[in-house]
Amino acid sequence: MDRTLPLMQRFRDSATALSSGQPCDCLPPLRAAAEQLRQKDLRISQLQAELRRPPPAPAQPPEPEALPTIYVVTPTYARLVQKAELVRLSQTLSLVPRLHWLLVEDAESPTPLVSGLLAASGLLFTHLVVLTPKAQRLREGEPGWVHPRGVEQRNKALDWLRGRGGAVGGEKDPPPPGTQGVVYFADDDNTYSRELFEEMRWTRGVSVWPVGLVGGLRFEGPQVQDGRVVGFHTAWEPNRPFPVDMAGFAVALPLLLAKPNAQFDSTAPRGHLESSLLSHLVDPKDLEPRAANCTRVLVWHTRTEKPKMKQEEQLQRQGRGSDPAIEV
Amino acid sequence: MDRTLPLMQRFRDSATALSSGQPCDCLPPLRAAAEQLRQKDLRISQLQAELRRPPPAPAQPPEPEALPTIYVVTPTYARLVQKAELVRLSQTLSLVPRLHWLLVEDAESPTPLVSGLLAASGLLFTHLVVLTPKAQRLREGEPGWVHPRGVEQRNKALDWLRGRGGAVGGEKDPPPPGTQGVVYFADDDNTYSRELFEEMRWTRGVSVWPVGLVGGLRFEGPQVQDGRVVGFHTAWEPNRPFPVDMAGFAVALPLLLAKPNAQFDSTAPRGHLESSLLSHLVDPKDLEPRAANCTRVLVWHTRTEKPKMKQEEQLQRQGRGSDPAIEV
Repeated sequence: MDRTLPLMQRFRDSATALSSGQPCDCLPPLRAAAEQLRQKDLRISQLQAELRRPPPAPAQPPEPEALPTIYVVTPTYARLVQKAELVRLSQTLSLVPRLHWLLVEDAESPTPLVSGLLAASGLLFTHLVVLTPKAQRLREGEPGWVHPRGVEQRNKALDWLRGRGGAVGGEKDPPPPGTQGVVYFADDDNTYSRELFEEMRWTRGVSVWPVGLVGGLRFEGPQVQDGRVVGFHTAWEPNRPFPVDMAGFAVALPLLLAKPNAQFDSTAPRGHLESSLLSHLVDPKDLEPRAANCTRVLVWHTRTEKPKMKQEEQLQRQGRGSDPAIEV
Repeated sequence: MDRTLPLMQRFRDSATALSSGQPCDCLPPLRAAAEQLRQKDLRISQLQAELRRPPPAPAQPPEPEALPTIYVVTPTYARLVQKAELVRLSQTLSLVPRLHWLLVEDAESPTPLVSGLLAASGLLFTHLVVLTPKAQRLREGEPGWVHPRGVEQRNKALDWLRGRGGAVGGEKDPPPPGTQGVVYFADDDNTYSRELFEEMRWTRGVSVWPVGLVGGLRFEGPQVQDGRVVGFHTAWEPNRPFPVDMAGFAVALPLLLAKPNAQFDSTAPRGHLESSLLSHLVDPKDLEPRAANCTRVLVWHTRTEKPKMKQEEQLQRQGRGSDPAIEV
């Protein structure tokens, strides 16, 4: 509109310069011109505003911000297959929206291998570290059930979620109060279908489902009648309070926060580690069956063989071992 | 511009209506107004054209159509961990653009487990089936090296790529003439970093890289000097023509099609299966080193333990075995 003022100014200057006679009748057309110019300036402003508006977002799945966050707790320890296991797990997790990986090393301090892998993963993560106390560590040749692995590490993740800090990398702040989320304990050697994570996302208390290739069976899992858990298919101590595998349940974050003393008990008898947490949280009859009433296997308790290194030791004795500068 | 004409017309009408005296000096400001209006109309037209222009495409990787296709050949056979292995492999492959999975079952006819998994995978795939002849099959307890596994299945995929048909599911037409692509033999138990596939995509002849946790070593792989392969780090028969693992190379599709007789030889001596194909295709000195001159391990020869089924057998004897209707 400013740009129309000089026009009327020039007209008035011209009119004043007239020496005699009837004033000319230029005023109406000039007023009309000024009005037209004003309207065109308005239109130009409108169009420029439209152009500044960001383009519409492309068609997308529902906003991830509206989904509860899945906190995946993974204990891990240094061994030959560690990187391979973490690479394939991180790639599976990268397929799941709104997921936060809590990776807890059994170590004194964060290792370059795990720190580098997390940084390259593209995932939202928190890096935690806690060394298993010597008394609870397995000795060479001891069977795995003497001391359940990963207890201190899972409890460390629970501490972080409860605002007791301790992160050494990634997101260091715990979930803000009121965060909707679910916590899942995912060891680094199991196999997870991406579908499993959508089954657990809307857990209200504790949700459960079958686990394949565990306990000497094709699968272990809850038995469901009329949408309620009425028993458990398992060969081993079916009368444990919660005869479920670590990979077979998830807990709503608000429930875990409401029970600040619920954690895993490293002194629990064999097969009772899961029960040591769940007994604080839920009555077995209130477990929420998922995966089509526990009729679909979406997680498998796979175990990776320990690679043989006989040739490596031979070559190393000859000074020709695999280049230690190359990370495996 | 048309809309400016009425203004000048109205001015001329007003001027004619003046009865006497010096003509007024309205012409210059009115001419200026007309010119301003003309320029504003032009600006409005320009802005409207800008608004009609489609929004710029969001930042994206290069059009997948411009990338050579990666044909991943996976032999597979029925066993307890088969579904778990194929689920995690298919999820890894789903992260790779422009990939075509050739899954070849060692079976008489396609199995529901594999057919269902392929259909649900979301991948572009071709389902092939060929039964290993009885004479080449491993007997119970025989070590794996007596008969290398997957030979017939890999050759079946080569046949399909060469237009000799045989698909039982998925995409049945072989690549049209002139297709740019690369062929990789990916067993279902190894671990693959998604980065590996981008290393092999632009293979001209045969590309190579290290493989982790194989041959009794931390890794096996080509030794590279000045960008050329000059030897191999391996503990076992370093003088084989191509001392590389099945997971350690990829072949350009046009090269495979130009050598229609190149295939795997099931009678090759132990450790010479890879050489039986590659000897038809390339001179060792022309191998193309990838993965930062073969200094990065992006694939691991992981092996999954055979699950123990002692409890399953016990429960089955009591008629309480795991529900056979539930696929594991």
